[in-house]
Amino acid sequence: MSTQQFTNQNNASAGNSSAVRVGVLGFGGLGQAAARVLAPKHEMLWVAAADQKGYACNPEGLNPDACIKVYQSQGSLGYLEPAGRLSSNSIADLIENASVEGYFLALPNLPNTFMASVARQFIQSGWRGVLVDAMKRTSAVEQMLELQDELQEAGITYMTGCGATPGLLTAAAALAAQSYAEIHRVKITFGVGIANWEAYRATIREDIAHMPGYNVERAMAMTDAQVQALLDETGGLLTLENMEHADDIMLELAGICSRDQVTVGGVVDTRNPKKPLSTNVQITGRTFEGKISTHTFTLGDETSMAANVCGPAFGYLKAGVMLHRRGIYGLFTAAEVMPQFVR
Amino acid sequence: MSTQQFTNQNNASAGNSSAVRVGVLGFGGLGQAAARVLAPKHEMLWVAAADQKGYACNPEGLNPDACIKVYQSQGSLGYLEPAGRLSSNSIADLIENASVEGYFLALPNLPNTFMASVARQFIQSGWRGVLVDAMKRTSAVEQMLELQDELQEAGITYMTGCGATPGLLTAAAALAAQSYAEIHRVKITFGVGIANWEAYRATIREDIAHMPGYNVERAMAMTDAQVQALLDETGGLLTLENMEHADDIMLELAGICSRDQVTVGGVVDTRNPKKPLSTNVQITGRTFEGKISTHTFTLGDETSMAANVCGPAFGYLKAGVMLHRRGIYGLFTAAEVMPQFVR
Repeated sequence: MSTQQFTNQNNASAGNSSAVRVGVLGFGGLGQAAARVLAPKHEMLWVAAADQKGYACNPEGLNPDACIKVYQSQGSLGYLEPAGRLSSNSIADLIENASVEGYFLALPNLPNTFMASVARQFIQSGWRGVLVDAMKRTSAVEQMLELQDELQEAGITYMTGCGATPGLLTAAAALAAQSYAEIHRVKITFGVGIANWEAYRATIREDIAHMPGYNVERAMAMTDAQVQALLDETGGLLTLENMEHADDIMLELAGICSRDQVTVGGVVDTRNPKKPLSTNVQITGRTFEGKISTHTFTLGDETSMAANVCGPAFGYLKAGVMLHRRGIYGLFTAAEVMPQFVR
Repeated sequence: MSTQQFTNQNNASAGNSSAVRVGVLGFGGLGQAAARVLAPKHEMLWVAAADQKGYACNPEGLNPDACIKVYQSQGSLGYLEPAGRLSSNSIADLIENASVEGYFLALPNLPNTFMASVARQFIQSGWRGVLVDAMKRTSAVEQMLELQDELQEAGITYMTGCGATPGLLTAAAALAAQSYAEIHRVKITFGVGIANWEAYRATIREDIAHMPGYNVERAMAMTDAQVQALLDETGGLLTLENMEHADDIMLELAGICSRDQVTVGGVVDTRNPKKPLSTNVQITGRTFEGKISTHTFTLGDETSMAANVCGPAFGYLKAGVMLHRRGIYGLFTAAEVMPQFVR
């Protein structure tokens, strides 16, 4: 392996024939954004997707516009002509029928056991390749940790917590930590602005579950009307503090600090695409000379949640493919591996 | 490989007996800072160092205070009792006599061919392990690129450009790029404050070489009195624009942008430890939705150049050791690999 070989490998896969064949599981707001992110890439080809009711796969590549149109008008990719199939077991059927090297799991975070159950499906199917999730909750990542031996034995390279936060901001914290002899605090504060919450129904319920007086069960049970009523009360803003976010366990696993030194909070504006504040992570520590200081990584306000989640997810997928092709399997977090830029 | 195994490996090397045995080549300001950075680490043990006139090695570990005292009072580590040896061929002698898994090359960047010539010495010696440099210039990294096949064949994992810039800030740019479909510009602006330039004689000449009207030869030929006279003219400030910095080629090699989209500049205050401005990198790009935006990574003002160079250098050394132990050799840049936190 060398920088030259990295480059050659990239060049070699620039044509579609050698592009990494990618699938997307889940086709809500995040899955649809993932399809649009993938569309212009030369190094990856989007060939497979599944939702709750069906799936679609085409070795020549799927068309995002056609897929999104079918999903929005008919409720499932299974209605896509001719590549779609309706199925009550869509993930298992897709795994069996599609030739895919890496999947992005753009699935709802809830219930909290869901992602691990999907990982088990992959393990049991005998499929080998790369899986990437953008999971949020610490407890969900803990469940993935229990699967690490099984993932390794199955020949699966699983990249967990590889969205925006955890993901991009966790990696920035891991990087920033390098300047310090010890880390005192990692503080993640996010601002999210979305013009229309109904495009992100699952994500919004996940956010509500973090609010005082709510939990996962209560948030999941809310009807759209109840969500709307809550948002009417708060002027469309969701203010979240001390959220259970897996950035904490990921930085602990990387040996950077203990999980109680990591805090995550933020403000979601569900009525305005402009962010209520600039998403940032602050890393405070002590240098070897005894100085206390803080590095800050701030995301540009014009970057959407979709861009900051899907971009890193595919960057980690590419890094995962490089590991997988070298026979390196098991579980990795966004804090351990450098994502690779996908052209 | 798995997160669990990462953790176990870390735990296993927590005692000195299994710590990574580290050497430092060069014992000016940067090498001395490296010794102080290493001192409290459990996962690494500083056992070897060389300067122009001699070397010192001790498998039980070297004492930074004793080494710095001898070097400053007598001009070489070779005078250290009992671990020091004077030598006109100090690097080759150290390679032969010390048992070291990874070296940090805290050597002057000038002449521009120096680092590659040291790498060749390692290749020719038959030594196998990890080398890390904090080189600055694009042309110096280009020379390392020519050695990649030889490094790989020699069983050496060489991490280049792994200081602050290039290094920490290049990696931050590579990470930030993940949010974007294409990158328009990477702009690195650094502020450095040092109380006493005479502690960083080589580094200051390297900076002067970037100034209008100067070049490497002219800067290297300057006497201390001439440097002092220049600094008297500028009030102790060195203002640098469009510097030849290897961040450009490293981001190009990582496929993130072309080198002409990367600019590096800054201000060095040689009379004040306070930074004249906050060191930062701005990454501007276009998201998949067509939005133009800029992510920013800013270093805390209280962090010194030494902390921001040596911390990342050893973080990349740890990452390099993990690659080397898996049989992954060759040349890597700071933009390709996530540095690992050293405890």
